[in-house]
Amino acid sequence: MSQKKIAVVLAGCGHLDGSEITEAVSTLIALAQQGATVSVFAPHIPLQEVDHTTGKPTGHERDVYAESARICRGQIHDLKNLNEAEFDALVFPGGFGAALNLSDWAKKGSKGSVLKEVQDAILSFHKASKPIGAFCIAPTLVAKVLGSEGVTVTIGNDKETSQEIEKTGALCEDCAVNDFISDRAHKVVTSPAYMYDEATPAEVFEGISKAVKELVEMA
Amino acid sequence: MSQKKIAVVLAGCGHLDGSEITEAVSTLIALAQQGATVSVFAPHIPLQEVDHTTGKPTGHERDVYAESARICRGQIHDLKNLNEAEFDALVFPGGFGAALNLSDWAKKGSKGSVLKEVQDAILSFHKASKPIGAFCIAPTLVAKVLGSEGVTVTIGNDKETSQEIEKTGALCEDCAVNDFISDRAHKVVTSPAYMYDEATPAEVFEGISKAVKELVEMA
Repeated sequence: MSQKKIAVVLAGCGHLDGSEITEAVSTLIALAQQGATVSVFAPHIPLQEVDHTTGKPTGHERDVYAESARICRGQIHDLKNLNEAEFDALVFPGGFGAALNLSDWAKKGSKGSVLKEVQDAILSFHKASKPIGAFCIAPTLVAKVLGSEGVTVTIGNDKETSQEIEKTGALCEDCAVNDFISDRAHKVVTSPAYMYDEATPAEVFEGISKAVKELVEMA
Repeated sequence: MSQKKIAVVLAGCGHLDGSEITEAVSTLIALAQQGATVSVFAPHIPLQEVDHTTGKPTGHERDVYAESARICRGQIHDLKNLNEAEFDALVFPGGFGAALNLSDWAKKGSKGSVLKEVQDAILSFHKASKPIGAFCIAPTLVAKVLGSEGVTVTIGNDKETSQEIEKTGALCEDCAVNDFISDRAHKVVTSPAYMYDEATPAEVFEGISKAVKELVEMA
């Protein structure tokens, strides 16, 4: 069993305006199964609340930090205090929050930008040669920051998003929901999860579990 | 693999004012791993929002149904439409929402009452000899409704809650976080989950997975 220390970054609580809940929990279960010690981080920024029964914005705001805390039972830290030196790896579960709150990918695609704290985290872990995991739509964060180095990620089999990701310089490989892609040169591990909309919770858990095992071994 | 149809009842999204998220997701992953077909239900009732970073009420209300929908990606049904004839088993994940929204156990203990739709669901599945699963604090719902029949449940090793549960006529057995108690005579399967506050997500998943396997086999 590893005693690796892993930082997990959340983006809210709910796939339409925050972190995808099954992906976030799968990540936390899989990391615990690998014996890792986990610290969860989120930024103190507003999110635009979406009604998850209708898919429509409600016009209300919630706080990304407070909502993320629901997933990890209040054991959460401000993303601005994330110090790469204290951890062996960095993980971003998916959900639309990764493309709405941690970046503006949902609106601007490859032309957009990534939240400064997220960019700093990805750059610092990468420079220290520590692995980075990203699931579902979250590989867009890694592509935006490390694309110019030709990092390889997966976004499942979504052609449109793959083409947009490749504009960053990153490469996209197709991948099944219960599997992952490992770019060992750049130490980036990605799994498509709910990029397959019809996936079952068991398939998402399987893909993320395999990716997490690879990430922890690499750390 | 089973093709059993299982109804899961949620109580919101977040352990302090709704369903415990890791327990709910563990239930959905484990049911999918067993090949079950799952339908998620929640009542259209208000919940009192609690800030999960401070543990304090915010004074705002949310809707149990809309919040529960976050966990199951919008695939949710009104609890009042739950028809026992369409399912093989019934499951209640835990979280304080089970004792705040689905019943008033948190305030009144064994002297309180259970939401009518929850009581109807438990009674109808029980009369049809279909198994009922309940995790964490949710076994209090089963105890309130079926306690007079001497049903056996677990609440972990919490002496105070055990004594309160036994006032309903139900029996309480101690149980480790990664295990479950099966009352095969009454077809009730329970696992303590986050009744152990310091449990890891992997331990909670292990206990719920074992309980779900038993439940599906019994169904």
